Amino acid sequence: MVKLIALYRQPEDKAAFDHHYVNIHTPLAKNMPGLRNIEVTKMLGTPMGTESDYYLMAEMYFDDEAALKTSMSSPGGKAAAKDLMGFAGKLVSMMIGSVIET
Amino acid sequence: MVKLIALYRQPEDKAAFDHHYVNIHTPLAKNMPGLRNIEVTKMLGTPMGTESDYYLMAEMYFDDEAALKTSMSSPGGKAAAKDLMGFAGKLVSMMIGSVIET
Repeated sequence: MVKLIALYRQPEDKAAFDHHYVNIHTPLAKNMPGLRNIEVTKMLGTPMGTESDYYLMAEMYFDDEAALKTSMSSPGGKAAAKDLMGFAGKLVSMMIGSVIET
Repeated sequence: MVKLIALYRQPEDKAAFDHHYVNIHTPLAKNMPGLRNIEVTKMLGTPMGTESDYYLMAEMYFDDEAALKTSMSSPGGKAAAKDLMGFAGKLVSMMIGSVIET
């Protein structure tokens, strides 16, 4: 399995971020072709009790790197990416990872 | 579900990192009481084709925040944390997150 990981730094307006994320962005992300699973994690903090650098992480699972790249190039993938850049372009770091152990 | 997330930045010596991670650290992490699942992801890069800031991510799943905190305070949790700080203290960022959507 390969996953597309979106790591969002702390937004200034968390309520506005959450509203857009849940109501607009998540449906677009779920519409990406070939998506096998999505897991969204809200950060509670660090083990030291401090605020974490990141606010939210989304992990989108695909069968392999080819399926992920095909999906990102599709209309559904481009729509999700366009929305992402519009509402969180300055907050998000994107990575592609290969699950090596579960 | 709550997860303890370890995000490792790119190590200088990837082979030495991998060797310690697989042979020493993973068995210690898996020995943490209450651990429900572990998922380890090796980063392939960014969607832009560049190297990602992070090299590896480990996600350790627990039933809830209380179970995670109990585990971190246990001898097994302390042994994993001590090893982590020794081999990757300068590379790792730790977070606790709550899975809000799957």
